[in-house]
Amino acid sequence: MKASELAARLGGTLEGEDAEILACGGLEEARKGDLSFCKDPKHVALVQTTEASAVLLPHDWSHGAPCSIIRVADPNQACIEAARLFAPPEPERAPGVHPSAIVDPSVNLGANVHVGAYTVIEKGSEICDGAVIEAQVFIGEGCRVGKGTHIYPQVTLREGTIVGDGCIIHCGVRLGGDGYGFNTSMENGMPKIEKIPQLGIVEIGDGVEIGSNTTIDRARIGRTYIGPMTKIDNLVQIGHNVKIKGFSGLIAQSGVAGSTEIGYGCLIWAQAGISGHIKIADGVQVGPQAGVPQSLDGSLKYVIGAPAMSMKELAAITLAPKMIAKLKAEVKELKQKLNG
Amino acid sequence: MKASELAARLGGTLEGEDAEILACGGLEEARKGDLSFCKDPKHVALVQTTEASAVLLPHDWSHGAPCSIIRVADPNQACIEAARLFAPPEPERAPGVHPSAIVDPSVNLGANVHVGAYTVIEKGSEICDGAVIEAQVFIGEGCRVGKGTHIYPQVTLREGTIVGDGCIIHCGVRLGGDGYGFNTSMENGMPKIEKIPQLGIVEIGDGVEIGSNTTIDRARIGRTYIGPMTKIDNLVQIGHNVKIKGFSGLIAQSGVAGSTEIGYGCLIWAQAGISGHIKIADGVQVGPQAGVPQSLDGSLKYVIGAPAMSMKELAAITLAPKMIAKLKAEVKELKQKLNG
Amino acid sequence: MKASELAARLGGTLEGEDAEILACGGLEEARKGDLSFCKDPKHVALVQTTEASAVLLPHDWSHGAPCSIIRVADPNQACIEAARLFAPPEPERAPGVHPSAIVDPSVNLGANVHVGAYTVIEKGSEICDGAVIEAQVFIGEGCRVGKGTHIYPQVTLREGTIVGDGCIIHCGVRLGGDGYGFNTSMENGMPKIEKIPQLGIVEIGDGVEIGSNTTIDRARIGRTYIGPMTKIDNLVQIGHNVKIKGFSGLIAQSGVAGSTEIGYGCLIWAQAGISGHIKIADGVQVGPQAGVPQSLDGSLKYVIGAPAMSMKELAAITLAPKMIAKLKAEVKELKQKLNG
Repeated sequence: MKASELAARLGGTLEGEDAEILACGGLEEARKGDLSFCKDPKHVALVQTTEASAVLLPHDWSHGAPCSIIRVADPNQACIEAARLFAPPEPERAPGVHPSAIVDPSVNLGANVHVGAYTVIEKGSEICDGAVIEAQVFIGEGCRVGKGTHIYPQVTLREGTIVGDGCIIHCGVRLGGDGYGFNTSMENGMPKIEKIPQLGIVEIGDGVEIGSNTTIDRARIGRTYIGPMTKIDNLVQIGHNVKIKGFSGLIAQSGVAGSTEIGYGCLIWAQAGISGHIKIADGVQVGPQAGVPQSLDGSLKYVIGAPAMSMKELAAITLAPKMIAKLKAEVKELKQKLNG
Repeated sequence: MKASELAARLGGTLEGEDAEILACGGLEEARKGDLSFCKDPKHVALVQTTEASAVLLPHDWSHGAPCSIIRVADPNQACIEAARLFAPPEPERAPGVHPSAIVDPSVNLGANVHVGAYTVIEKGSEICDGAVIEAQVFIGEGCRVGKGTHIYPQVTLREGTIVGDGCIIHCGVRLGGDGYGFNTSMENGMPKIEKIPQLGIVEIGDGVEIGSNTTIDRARIGRTYIGPMTKIDNLVQIGHNVKIKGFSGLIAQSGVAGSTEIGYGCLIWAQAGISGHIKIADGVQVGPQAGVPQSLDGSLKYVIGAPAMSMKELAAITLAPKMIAKLKAEVKELKQKLNG
Repeated sequence: MKASELAARLGGTLEGEDAEILACGGLEEARKGDLSFCKDPKHVALVQTTEASAVLLPHDWSHGAPCSIIRVADPNQACIEAARLFAPPEPERAPGVHPSAIVDPSVNLGANVHVGAYTVIEKGSEICDGAVIEAQVFIGEGCRVGKGTHIYPQVTLREGTIVGDGCIIHCGVRLGGDGYGFNTSMENGMPKIEKIPQLGIVEIGDGVEIGSNTTIDRARIGRTYIGPMTKIDNLVQIGHNVKIKGFSGLIAQSGVAGSTEIGYGCLIWAQAGISGHIKIADGVQVGPQAGVPQSLDGSLKYVIGAPAMSMKELAAITLAPKMIAKLKAEVKELKQKLNG
């Protein structure tokens, strides 16, 4: 699209060459053919070195640019609008069941449901109105997928899994796998390891999003529960009988061990690990790579490190060598005074 | 099911309303329609606040409950029995090959084998008696799946993979991917990165369970070996040529780098990482998020932290700031005495 | 194969029994029927205790072996040659589209392309010459797979993903999933969590290898970019808008958060985590389990720990308790002198 056409669509004015624009990108990553954007003069250096072919700038920008300029009222918003123009079109998932999908006759399919190629839906399951089940998905017996929920390719739902309305489940997510549970004993001097039956289910509330290749185990007894509006990133592990109340976030590669409860509005940062059978109070943030061995009652709003502690405590440990060096010098001085 | 019918099935006696029971759950997570259980009076507070509709209690329980009570001899055992009644029925996987499965004519299928929809089994593979291969599985050339082994949907076995008898392989497991191996050199001032051929296989012993989305790489030469009765959780990474002798556990998101050997009866906790080319002695436990850079000879039965150390050593580091503050005060006092 | 035949094929000479050789393996893991190798006399103890049936040794080896010996010029190279003889044959992926594959008529298929069973390729995609797309793969709309690229079973490419020439994408890889991005605000005292549209794509350069179950998110706007010859291991997470310039390695279970840039020739070790919106300079190595909160300008070539620091700094923290104990003793002595 020509920069002039783009400027017209975004309600802006073009200055400079009428370049051909093919995509959008940040100032630093942008290449020839890209449109970028800046709204804050403090990033003027990035504008001056960008390789973009055009840049969205506010009306009062006075620092110039090494490429064409499109002046708009709100460069941030204009860039999202422009990105939509260049984004890969969202694939159409029209209502209907692909002829190659194997849907058991007992399955209750709502109105306007899409079922993609090579998807398997087993007996007794219910797919509610407007749900999109993409290609190569496996939905076991007696599952329920709520209204308008979107399940991307190659997801598996083991038997009995319940997913609420308006959820987004990304590729490769595994819901309802057996939790890790074994009884270990000795018998005639030999170890004996017995599987504990995992008889519960996974229940996902409304508005939950779950990232690629994340795994959520079925309960031993009862439910593993992910409350409404919880947002889970990629490669996260949720153990059996975990309860996440809702409106929380779990960032990539974090893990929550069995039977732990996470309150409302928590944020678990990337690669953090939370032990089993504990409680995290509402609104607590667990920092990246933190390891939480015990319940957090909310008296600390942010923990970091392993075992998890306050930022101040972690800083004190990190500073220990410096403090020790200082003390050492002082002790040496005292010694000299005393002996000399 | 009515609470009265449930009581009869469990050989117990009902007190209170004949509530409708739909599921089982722990005291804290239970909701209306749930059956819960308690055998120890020390949890009396949880019983008093449960939202369950009925609770299994021992005959001599004298603390009452806010809901119906079913008295039984062993509440724990009775709850497992009840959970089986309410559990999603285990899907039937009757012997037979689904017509949509693509099984090479050369594949050796044992008696009573189940092969699910859209599964692909390539030439020369052997599926032994009673094995269940669910839907959408990929089994490459020359693999062997042992007797009674259960492979859940969307698992991949690359060529040559051997899985023993009585194993359970959960959704999304990847066996036999190429290990990470590259030769890096400089050529005419440019880096040259060459792939080292990964020519070995993965061999899984009898009675092994592998959790969802776990990855185990094929050996560079020879075998990556997971010994009998090893239990591996979700999202675990096992590098090429690792040897796990057997009867060990690896909890979620832990990782073992290439060519490392793990003894009998080890337990590797969640998110722990073990370096390559080292040995972990029989019976050693590696704590959650621990990082093990060197062999562990078993003189420490439990390690934690990174680099891995004893609990006592880690505690000493955590306590360092407190110790330093104390010393600082003492030094200050000494100074004053000396100078005053 | 008989050891004598093997010796002949490898240009070596056999000493001892003409054992039947079935596989190759390292000295320690080798069992009856295996061929092993040793080139360095310092491993003589491993040779003497190996259970291999034959061992490749250099011509001048004078320490004997407990099994047959095949003398060769270069035992290392000979073992790779032998391993190729015993390796599971690389499955043939002949040009052609499996009849069960669903390839949209608009897809542009190059010459000699292989498309496996139950694979789905959606409209507008391009699969270049010599590419191998194995079974049960999903390729969304408008994707591009470069020349000679090999995609293993059960990979998903969301719409618009671009993969370069000569890449290897292992089982279960997820390219182009939505990045984690939400706007959180309060509305009438209730939290409101809104999804930020993820409108960009993933672009993978030439010669990139990506390990099993790794996830790479599409950009919010623009591209998530993995530069040429980057080698990514299993279960790695790459956030939206990350830029990896090229010739870098990312080992298993490491993660890179959104919008971070990683220079040329970096090595990110296993389970390391790199925060979002920072830059890692060319050639920097991030140690296993390290956590990098801030940009690294290359003044440190290797960082470790969390927050990431030099080896020396981490060692100082680990040694703090020992240093404190020493200081404590000195202070005690001073006290006694002063008071006594």
